[in-house]
Amino acid sequence: MSATILDGNKAAEALLESLKPSIKKLKPKLVIVQIGKEAASMSYIKKKIETCAKIGLEAEHRELPFETPIDKLFQTIEDLNRDPKTTGFIIQLPLPPHLRQATPLVFRAIDPRKDVDGFTAYNLGKIFLSTEFETLPPATPAGIIALLEYYKIPIAGKHAVIVGRSNIVGKPLAIMLLNRDATVTVCHSKTSDLRQKTLDADLLVAAVGIPKFVTNDMVKKGAVVIDVGVNRTETEKIVGDTDFDAIKEIASAITPVPGGVGPMTVASLIRNVVRAKEQQKNT
Amino acid sequence: MSATILDGNKAAEALLESLKPSIKKLKPKLVIVQIGKEAASMSYIKKKIETCAKIGLEAEHRELPFETPIDKLFQTIEDLNRDPKTTGFIIQLPLPPHLRQATPLVFRAIDPRKDVDGFTAYNLGKIFLSTEFETLPPATPAGIIALLEYYKIPIAGKHAVIVGRSNIVGKPLAIMLLNRDATVTVCHSKTSDLRQKTLDADLLVAAVGIPKFVTNDMVKKGAVVIDVGVNRTETEKIVGDTDFDAIKEIASAITPVPGGVGPMTVASLIRNVVRAKEQQKNT
Repeated sequence: MSATILDGNKAAEALLESLKPSIKKLKPKLVIVQIGKEAASMSYIKKKIETCAKIGLEAEHRELPFETPIDKLFQTIEDLNRDPKTTGFIIQLPLPPHLRQATPLVFRAIDPRKDVDGFTAYNLGKIFLSTEFETLPPATPAGIIALLEYYKIPIAGKHAVIVGRSNIVGKPLAIMLLNRDATVTVCHSKTSDLRQKTLDADLLVAAVGIPKFVTNDMVKKGAVVIDVGVNRTETEKIVGDTDFDAIKEIASAITPVPGGVGPMTVASLIRNVVRAKEQQKNT
Repeated sequence: MSATILDGNKAAEALLESLKPSIKKLKPKLVIVQIGKEAASMSYIKKKIETCAKIGLEAEHRELPFETPIDKLFQTIEDLNRDPKTTGFIIQLPLPPHLRQATPLVFRAIDPRKDVDGFTAYNLGKIFLSTEFETLPPATPAGIIALLEYYKIPIAGKHAVIVGRSNIVGKPLAIMLLNRDATVTVCHSKTSDLRQKTLDADLLVAAVGIPKFVTNDMVKKGAVVIDVGVNRTETEKIVGDTDFDAIKEIASAITPVPGGVGPMTVASLIRNVVRAKEQQKNT
């Protein structure tokens, strides 16, 4: 058996295509704020800007110097909150070391209506309520769900096991999968007997940031495997959190890295920009 | 073996005792808004009012008629949001049938700083971040955690299995246990092979609202069992979601119903009132 490769580029293209009429009509604008020039951030931002250009979404890359003090960052956020031309904006993470501790405060300053990353408490909290309140969900979990939907992979009644419990992937994805009737287990570095838990997964999500952390002996035959990892090897090659080559012989479906979850995250971010604009027009 | 009975009355008394100096100093005030006279609500409210009286916390029971229209309810909420004498307030659930669909809208109208039930999106969303942002957490999950802490039952590294995924118990408890390093599984009506999942639990939480739903053959020897159920039998006896008598011979610890989670929920609500007052003084 060889797994279906879940092509994130293809699914993202379909999602973006469906957003084009709204973009043309509503003309939303995305601003990406970057502080410093972290290498990984640069490549993420480049990808976002390219995708926006391709579908005709106005995007501005606002670069602040590495040494930006916190009050200057807050002022930038407040300006963007008030700017009627800015539909939504994101503060590219990670922040430079001198601002890192203040990350929650920085996110609290963002107007939830413009929080197209879906990272503010208000937008995260709404996803507790039900799928219909997932208006600006965090982009990566939303992208994973859109990918499963594109490939018509059922979620309801399945046992989803998520390895990793970050605030922007593991925890919100758990709630969003519960909203869709999956049974959900979240594992992490403190989990004992991890393999016993992953072997029970119908849907296995790896989001730990460790190259090839999930090996084929941890995967049940026929499972669907989603790899959120983006790890740079010494040779600058990008590898995921799963051992793709070995697992694709066991799994029924698997995402490649790159070209799996990554493009879906970007497409979900853009969907959030469109939704934010729709909401703002209605109020 | 016979399980330790986790005495919620005793643990709640200790928690309330620790709040007394702050209550005496800060003089916070709780308002409980009730629409109609639903029988179960009456008994919950009575319990809350009695507990407030016992520890010297000012509490007002504001009764609105069953047929209160939605605009009148919004006006009441807005008055309480603005009233400087009201530290926090709760809208007792369930709402009457004609208002039930609007429940999310009603909660959205509550100022998160006065949301001592911890049900607004902002307060729920904050718990995604980490334990230090659980300032006004939902009262039942917070009560369960306080009960485990009182009995010095470790959470980190344990496999917690929650049966039930409500917005106010199952889902937020899952996140709060993840914040405390448990591995967490959430099961519900769509879960296949539920018994296989509950049998793996070190910490088993039943929150389904079905009398004696969790039977002794679903419990691992030595597990800690938390029963959130409050079910009224035809004879008006209150029973939980677990088969207490049989399970107490297998479990290492179990909560009784009544006298387990219930008093902890009330104590956590009161702790939220104190915290809300502290926050309001600091801003």
